[in-house]
Amino acid sequence: MEQNRDSTDRFLPRFDAAGLVTAIVVDADTRALLMVAHMNAEAIERTRATGQAHFWSRSRRALWRKGETSGNGLNVAEMRVDCDQDALLLVVHPAGPACHTGRRSCFYRRIDADGSLTFLDDDVQG
Amino acid sequence: MEQNRDSTDRFLPRFDAAGLVTAIVVDADTRALLMVAHMNAEAIERTRATGQAHFWSRSRRALWRKGETSGNGLNVAEMRVDCDQDALLLVVHPAGPACHTGRRSCFYRRIDADGSLTFLDDDVQG
Repeated sequence: MEQNRDSTDRFLPRFDAAGLVTAIVVDADTRALLMVAHMNAEAIERTRATGQAHFWSRSRRALWRKGETSGNGLNVAEMRVDCDQDALLLVVHPAGPACHTGRRSCFYRRIDADGSLTFLDDDVQG
Repeated sequence: MEQNRDSTDRFLPRFDAAGLVTAIVVDADTRALLMVAHMNAEAIERTRATGQAHFWSRSRRALWRKGETSGNGLNVAEMRVDCDQDALLLVVHPAGPACHTGRRSCFYRRIDADGSLTFLDDDVQG
């Protein structure tokens, strides 16, 4: 099974020891990287059943639907899986800022050569 | 320290229990998602020092430079960090296919509603 995860046409997610895969979320229109989160089997199932992105919170140890408190849900247009099936790509239409800081993307800072971070304008984030 | 990782202008990577952060690699020209890997402190240091992407292999428990055997290195144009500093974005110019299967991107399959995977053409991968 392990050997052919990269050539099969079956979705066989390879969960880590904690039962999780990495989920990469990009904007369907701009392809900007919005956020990175984790999904367990239930989060994947709920996302596929509802079309709304669900994740597993490692800190809260709970399933959550993105936007359930903020209102900024993620409408999933497409899901992809990587070669060894331990990472998923979610292509989404965001209802609002994806980052808890209120920014469009969680990737709003560039790492400079001296180790300082430069904050990026909203339209070039992610 | 934990509280202001999202507002600081200092790069303070938050490593997990295994000493790793998630690294998301995108193409500088197309913004296509190429691959996902992990970096420890040394991989980050080597990447910043050389401009060539280095990662930590969890399976081999070793530092590796992407392309050291395949020749398909990743020239890093820019690095970004996410709000809680446990994930990095590497914006790269790839010297060749990023995936070990010889494909441009590791994300070459779409997950369909019935759980089957559809293989995508090279120019729309990632």
